[in-house]
Order: sequence, then C-alpha cells, then structure tokens
Amino acid sequence: MTIKIALLGAGTVGSQVARLLKEENELLAARAGAPLELVGISVSNLEAERDPWIDRELLTTDSKAIIDQADIVIELIGGVDLPRELILYAINSGASVVTGNKALLAEHGPEIYDLAKEKNVDVYYEAAVAGAVPVVYAVRESLAGDTVKAIQGILNGTTNYILDEMTTKGLPFDEVLATAQELGFAEADPTADVDGHDAAAKIAILASLAFHKRVHIDDVQVEGIREITSSDIAAATAGGYVIKLIAEATQDDAGKIDVRVGPTLVPEAHPLASIGGSFNAVVIEAEAADRLMFYGRGAGGAPTASAVLSDVVAAASKRVVGGRAPQEIVLGKSEFVAAEDSTSKYFVRMDVQDEVGTLAQLARLFADAGVSISSVQQESVAGNGEAEITITTHTARAADLAATIESINDTQTAKVSRVLRVADE
Amino acid sequence: MTIKIALLGAGTVGSQVARLLKEENELLAARAGAPLELVGISVSNLEAERDPWIDRELLTTDSKAIIDQADIVIELIGGVDLPRELILYAINSGASVVTGNKALLAEHGPEIYDLAKEKNVDVYYEAAVAGAVPVVYAVRESLAGDTVKAIQGILNGTTNYILDEMTTKGLPFDEVLATAQELGFAEADPTADVDGHDAAAKIAILASLAFHKRVHIDDVQVEGIREITSSDIAAATAGGYVIKLIAEATQDDAGKIDVRVGPTLVPEAHPLASIGGSFNAVVIEAEAADRLMFYGRGAGGAPTASAVLSDVVAAASKRVVGGRAPQEIVLGKSEFVAAEDSTSKYFVRMDVQDEVGTLAQLARLFADAGVSISSVQQESVAGNGEAEITITTHTARAADLAATIESINDTQTAKVSRVLRVADE
Repeated sequence: MTIKIALLGAGTVGSQVARLLKEENELLAARAGAPLELVGISVSNLEAERDPWIDRELLTTDSKAIIDQADIVIELIGGVDLPRELILYAINSGASVVTGNKALLAEHGPEIYDLAKEKNVDVYYEAAVAGAVPVVYAVRESLAGDTVKAIQGILNGTTNYILDEMTTKGLPFDEVLATAQELGFAEADPTADVDGHDAAAKIAILASLAFHKRVHIDDVQVEGIREITSSDIAAATAGGYVIKLIAEATQDDAGKIDVRVGPTLVPEAHPLASIGGSFNAVVIEAEAADRLMFYGRGAGGAPTASAVLSDVVAAASKRVVGGRAPQEIVLGKSEFVAAEDSTSKYFVRMDVQDEVGTLAQLARLFADAGVSISSVQQESVAGNGEAEITITTHTARAADLAATIESINDTQTAKVSRVLRVADE
Repeated sequence: MTIKIALLGAGTVGSQVARLLKEENELLAARAGAPLELVGISVSNLEAERDPWIDRELLTTDSKAIIDQADIVIELIGGVDLPRELILYAINSGASVVTGNKALLAEHGPEIYDLAKEKNVDVYYEAAVAGAVPVVYAVRESLAGDTVKAIQGILNGTTNYILDEMTTKGLPFDEVLATAQELGFAEADPTADVDGHDAAAKIAILASLAFHKRVHIDDVQVEGIREITSSDIAAATAGGYVIKLIAEATQDDAGKIDVRVGPTLVPEAHPLASIGGSFNAVVIEAEAADRLMFYGRGAGGAPTASAVLSDVVAAASKRVVGGRAPQEIVLGKSEFVAAEDSTSKYFVRMDVQDEVGTLAQLARLFADAGVSISSVQQESVAGNGEAEITITTHTARAADLAATIESINDTQTAKVSRVLRVADE
C-alpha cells in the first residue's frame, strides 16, 4: 500500500513540503505505516524557475487531474475562491485534505467541515495558524478534557516585526513598512497583515476550536497598526509597556464570546512582551491546565512545511490503520459580547492645556462615566503651555470608555489623541 | 457503546482526573464519540479521606478486577514495580493504557511498548513529561515530518523553585529545601528531584521519541543541585547568567546521542532563563521548524490531569472509530557520545593567590589543554592576598576541560572550586 499525495502550489511553503517529502522519506513511511508518494504538483506557471529538488515531471497545471489520483491533497495555493473549489472537489473525491489556508477556513470553514463529515474524510490545518507552532493541536486535542477560558496571541509575524523595529529603532511606521517590503518580510500589498485581517482569520479558527462554537472572520473586532505612531510607542515604553498586535478570544461564564485583534499595550513582564521579530506566540488559559504558552516560527517555508508534514503523517496513518481526525464540535449557537459591552483596561493619551485644575477635571469625567483610573502620567510640552496626560484605567466597559472620551473632547482644554487596550499581566 | 475506564490511584492527579471525567462528561463524550464511564478507582486505603467528588462506591483495592472490565486503564499509582505489573496485565487484557509514570517508562518502556505492539493496544503518556505541556505530542507527532536536532528543558518544578528562591532571596540550598518541604513543593525524600533523576527520566523519554533510538534512564549523565552554593549563584548573576537544572538531548551528524541533566548557566536573554517557580519549559530545535518553545505547569493535580484526559480522549476515540496511536519507531541501535567527548561551554571558578602572573599562568594551562577562553573575571578577596577568578570557555571537550582542571589543581597557586556547564544563547 502506498499513500498518494497531490500538492497544490509550489510557492515558498509548497516547495519546502516537496523537499521534506523527499528528504524525510524513510522516516515519514515509518511514521505513517506506508510509503508516501508525491503524484503531482500543480502550479500556475510550468516555466517558472523552481528549487532544485522539485521534480519537473511532477508539475502540472491541472489540479483536478492530480486530485483524482490522490489519497491526500495538500492545498497551499493561497487566496479563497480557487482553493475552496479544489478542496470541495478533493473532499467529494474522497481524499483527506491538508491546508494552511487561514483566510479560507475563517470564511468558509463550516461548509468544508460539513462536507467532510458527510463524505467521511478529514480536514487538517495545523499550518493555518502560527506556522510551526502546534497550537491547532493544542486547542483541538491537547485540551480535549479541559475548558479553555482565554487565548491571547501574537499571530502575525509581519506586524510583530514592524512594531519591533519601530520600538527598538524609533522609526516611523511608513519607513519600517517600506524596509520590510524591500526585505521580503511584508507583501507588496500589506493590507492583510497590517490591518489585522490575517491575525483575525487565525484567532477566529482558534476560537471556534476552543469554545466549540462557530466563529466567522466577520465576528472578530479588528483594528490594525497603521495608526500607531512613534510617539505612541514612546509613551508605552515610558509606562513600562510594549505595543504588540494582540489577537485574543475569551468566553464568559454565560457562554458569550469576545474575539478581537488590535494594537495592545503588553506589560514588560508579560510572556508575550519579549516575543521578537517574526516569531509567533500563543498563551492559552484553561481551567485545569492553567496557563500554557507556545512559541515558534509563525511563517516561512520550512517551518510551515514542518506543520504541513505533521498533518500529512496523521492523515496518512489514518488511511493505513483507520481512525479519524477529531471532528468539528458545535455545542450551540454562537453568541458574542456586544462591542459596547466588551471590557478591557485602557491607555488614554490626551493633549491638554497645562492649567491648574485640568487633571482634576479629567479625573471627574472618568469618574462620572464609571471608569476607574489606575495611573496617571503628566508631561509638560516645553514652553507652549501644553502638556500630555496619559491615563491608564482599570477594567472598563467599552461604552463607558467611549462616553468618557466624548466628554473629554467636548471640553475646551483637552483632546484625546490615542486610545489603546492594555493586556492583563 | 460506552467506553469503560479504570482509574488506578486517587492521589493528587488521580482525584483531579476523576473530577474532570465527571464535570466535563458531555464534552468528553462529544470528543471521544461515545460516553466515558468510570468503572472503578483502585486505592491502597479504602478508609482514607477523599475529595468530595469521588464516588466512594467506585473505590476498590482490587486493581485487576477493574482492569478486567476496562477499555482504558489510567495508571497514576507512582513507583515502578506495581505499576509495571498492572500495566502489563492491562495490555494483556486488551486495554489501552494511559500513564503519567516517567520513572517506569524510562526504566521499562521498551518492554511495555513491545508487549503493546504484540497485543495491538496503545500506550499514551503525555502526562509523564512536563505535566500539562503537550511536549510528548510535539516530538512524537507534531514534528513527524521533521528532524529534531536538540531538546533543552526545565523539566523539574521542584528544583526550578529551589534555584529560583536561592537566586532571588539569596538563601542557601538547605534552608530553601526545608521551606519547600514544609510548603509541600518538595517531597520528604527529595532525592528524585534534587539529584536530577526525575528530570533524567523525562529527558530519556523525550530523547527516545525525538531520535527514534531507545534511551534508558541509565544512559543519561546526571548531576543534581545539592552542591550549588549561594556563592555559585552570585558568581553566575555577576556574569549575566541564571543557574537552572537543564535537561538536554542532542544528536550529532553521526547519529551519536548525548543526553544529560545538570545545573547549567543560562544566559539571561535565553528563553529558559525567565521560567520561574514551578513552571516547566522545553525548547526544541528541529531542522525545518527551527526553534519551538512550550511552557506551562509541569506538575500539580489539575494540570497533569488535563494531560491525562487528552490521552483518554485520544484512546477512547480510537476505540470508537478505529485507528492507532503512533507506534514506537526504533531506527537503529543507540550510540552515545562518550562522557569525555561530550562538548559544552564551561564556567570555571577558582580560588587563587593574588599574585602578579597568576592569570597568565592559568591562561597558559587552558591553552595547553586546547580549551579556548571566552571571558575572565577576577575579584580580590579583601585583605588576605587571595582572589577569585572565573573563566568562561568556548565550546570544549569534557576530557580537555578535565585535564585543565587537573593541571590547575596541581599548581600551588590556584584551586578550582566549581565547574558548571554554560548553555548556548
């Protein structure tokens, strides 16, 4: 018995998958219980240059022809429409599917999982979240006897790199982005990364698995990092914080889910504060396991290919000895915390007239809206009668904070320049 | 169809397993594909006080009687001989086995795996290494398409707590150990923890899985932390290091394995340096995945029970829909690096006569033995003509370092007071 594999896509990750399938052949066969055979690699351009280990005779532009021969289909094309069509085709043909496509799953996951259930095939997607870090396994299987309360992560390497460079080198966003694009760390169109959509897709997938409720990418409240200035970063540093793009998902005791992505002040002692460059990290809080953290390469050809191969081995072994991947569990309809009821600590920066009584007036406005202040920092801006005040709050409702900001902006003496969430220790 | 479970042992972990089996009943059934039924709990004393959720009617002293009824046997007794007998009995009766018994597996693993293979049943042991942290999964399945090059971990919470207290409070080993015993963080007989045997069993299990070679606990070079003094810790701190009990396993290009446990100087910027208290952490270096780190509660009833339950769900699901756990893969005979050929950076503390030329003489002795010096620190001990010199070396062979130390101790002017390994960045 040989397990036949079709590889759709030979980009950065696909090419490394082909390499590992060749180099780790003996070990993969031992782990899977049967030899694995790559029957074809579908690409859009047959003439393009390829890595030396790619066997050109396997290249084809006809994805469906190689899916027809395959026990396992690995989808690494990117985009949404074509991968969706090919994955549904693969499931209908009875193949198991391995994909790293977070955008597709966060958008059309339920359609795919339902068809897979109907056709008795499995869908694996460890590579879709946090690259080489086995966090899909962690929420789907490792915590199978536990209750996840919260997930908090750095799930996008590009934005983590950009914020890191802004913090350590004091450079503005635009300049760091341009350099990242030159170095290949950011795409020509950086929207998916810098506006938070990539991280939103990943946290939607994790939240669905963790809470056993369907979470669509549109259910995620998303804010990107384009607005973050060097002065925000300086203010964060002065307060003992690091600004990170944090994706988080929580479920309250009533079963309501809050899923969001946004620039967040992380206290320097927090385990996510020290995650540098293009690494990803995920902190999971579970009832019995308590706090777990996972950290590793969140992107890149070889690390992501390592995650793909673990799924291939799992899928192949089930073809050989039977068994099924864990199925999607939906324990009820998803209910979400309304945006105005979402709670957080906040960091509020204000430009104020440097007059006696300003701080007292501001403190009154916070108190009137029911927002409790945790700390205040005031800095005079030399000479011109203006000052900057930064207030950090205790946990507050978003609506109460919004009311506070409105009433501050209604004064003649203070204007809010930035509001950021603050992560708990 | 109902999956019948026998629980052997109702100590800290066993009692939490019983709680989760009850509280998470619905979710466990959804994940496993069938209801789970606890058919009995074997204990040594029927009269002892138990947690309120323990159903006393399930208690028995007859382990074999409940194994006879079970599809899955959870062994949480501790010790080696009795668990070994009961696990072999369970396998012979056709039950799947879930155990957290690192000492048993590091000693008798192959006997158990071989019998399980013969009888077509599975053995799961996520809880045996690093409690709630799914590191057995990581090396056994998540890196199934990758090649592990090295594993480095803090695998014993008791010693990590003791070293932490010695470092942050400046207290001597004996005093911290006594307090830890009072607080229940250390056993009345602390040998397994403080002499490194517990960590050695765990790294033997991980090394076997990572390198596909059998590694017995006796193959691990072990050194404990009893000898570490406050003055060692002060010297480490002065050099920018933290002393941790590090378990590590590496395989060189020729396939030779080096597995060891010992107090090690970890640079402050290293991801393991900041792991505090009773947490465990494991860093894995793999060819494609690059560096992964996992961190969480390494012990304690509820966290360890969470790991046990993930194994129970995996075992139960395979009873329902078929399939097998990953089997032990042995790719060849284990060959180990000879103790004298083991390489490391070293930290060497010496008491010397504070005379002109002493440092030059010492430097010559290192050079003569082929050991290259990376840094030197010298401190005069006030008034009495003595000084302390600390030398950090580049990577050196153990035998060359031993020869250097011998030649230093042969001089009239210097005596080596401590040698510790230094971890790479």
